[in-house]
Amino acid sequence: MTDDDILLASALADAAGAAIRPFFRARFAIETKSDASPVTQADRAAERAIRDLLALHAPADGIVGEEYGRERAGADRVWVLDPIDGTRAFIAGRPIFGTLIALLEQGKPMLGIIDQPISGERWVGAAGRPTTLSGQVVTTRSCPTLADALLATTSPWLFDAAGGSVFDRVRGSVRDTLLGGDCYNYGLLAAGHGDIVLEQGLQLYDFAALVPVVEGAGGLMRDWRGGLLDADSDGAVVAVGDPSLLDPMLALLG
Amino acid sequence: MTDDDILLASALADAAGAAIRPFFRARFAIETKSDASPVTQADRAAERAIRDLLALHAPADGIVGEEYGRERAGADRVWVLDPIDGTRAFIAGRPIFGTLIALLEQGKPMLGIIDQPISGERWVGAAGRPTTLSGQVVTTRSCPTLADALLATTSPWLFDAAGGSVFDRVRGSVRDTLLGGDCYNYGLLAAGHGDIVLEQGLQLYDFAALVPVVEGAGGLMRDWRGGLLDADSDGAVVAVGDPSLLDPMLALLG
Repeated sequence: MTDDDILLASALADAAGAAIRPFFRARFAIETKSDASPVTQADRAAERAIRDLLALHAPADGIVGEEYGRERAGADRVWVLDPIDGTRAFIAGRPIFGTLIALLEQGKPMLGIIDQPISGERWVGAAGRPTTLSGQVVTTRSCPTLADALLATTSPWLFDAAGGSVFDRVRGSVRDTLLGGDCYNYGLLAAGHGDIVLEQGLQLYDFAALVPVVEGAGGLMRDWRGGLLDADSDGAVVAVGDPSLLDPMLALLG
Repeated sequence: MTDDDILLASALADAAGAAIRPFFRARFAIETKSDASPVTQADRAAERAIRDLLALHAPADGIVGEEYGRERAGADRVWVLDPIDGTRAFIAGRPIFGTLIALLEQGKPMLGIIDQPISGERWVGAAGRPTTLSGQVVTTRSCPTLADALLATTSPWLFDAAGGSVFDRVRGSVRDTLLGGDCYNYGLLAAGHGDIVLEQGLQLYDFAALVPVVEGAGGLMRDWRGGLLDADSDGAVVAVGDPSLLDPMLALLG
């Protein structure tokens, strides 16, 4: 992962944002998600714009994207794309969805971008470098005690039955819990405005970009058994801003 | 309620926003809410700024505010203030909280503002006039069928036990449900990006400003028995963008 990769990832996010903005708060008939729905149009237009740039600038790299699937997914370097993370928020006109772009090397997330194309906020995380939000270095905040922590998760209904019990246990152990938010929750945690994000059932393209953002800001992001997140992870994730929260969280998750 | 009242309400929102912005995403110790907490500082600074202007420009009017209580609350005209609606979102750094300012005449909400001081979005609703969002007229969207509707509510944990059962019934009858959002959900409904908002346990300052915004955009906002919302309402509210959704909603709520 080089400086050029970071520049390319930023160009990919620029292209996705330009594709998405015309659809935001556009008036459209209420439809179930289908090929013809405006949301899917926005998703597809954004992922298509990213893939066009990758074909030009990184033709040998693999791609795993939510809309157009896998290409050369066994390559050493694989770009992982979620053109709109937080589809419900996007449909509802909330400016807190995000475009997620990650670069994996040997299956490990080395570079991640969370881009909010309406507010213009962009988080960039890269292994071994400090995370930035719109160009400014950001860091997680100190919160060594679980009982003081602010927890966020998109929805309690996204956990399975066992996961829901775990979530209830965690929720009962923290100061407060905020719902909604999708990828934006991880960006805010990286910028020091939250302490824990807990989710389950994520796909690779939902979490790959978040790992370098969170860890480059001083936090930790793991699966529920404490393992590093990679292309083989099961989609149950925990992010903590203060590293000392990881052990108590894993005790609750175990 | 006159044009001057609308201008005054806009000046109140300007003052609140100026008071709030320095606190947004400021780094502060995690505290329980108390007089000294930065969040309470932001709330209080904003409500104080509003009250200072009201003392100057409308000294005979009553005031009901979340932070500083009631003054002349029996007056014909009463300003109702929630300096930060969506405190959890504000604490977490999400730019979808809002300042709520309403003017009641004989207990009835005649004027309402939802102001988002970070994005600069401002909804203005006034009885007999079209609702505007940042100066542009907005309208709710057509959605005559409950099964097609997008429902929003801040949190399922804000309903009491009976209300929670009602909420589950409603949730099972609509297309999709979005969590989080606070007052912003009503603004988005008024602008045609959502169909139903259902909540319980609200205070007068949580809902008074929303009524003119929703109704001036073509929607309806009522209590769970279908009654008009006023200073005596019990805090269980339903907003629908398409008026034809009200009857099927009341059937579910009854």
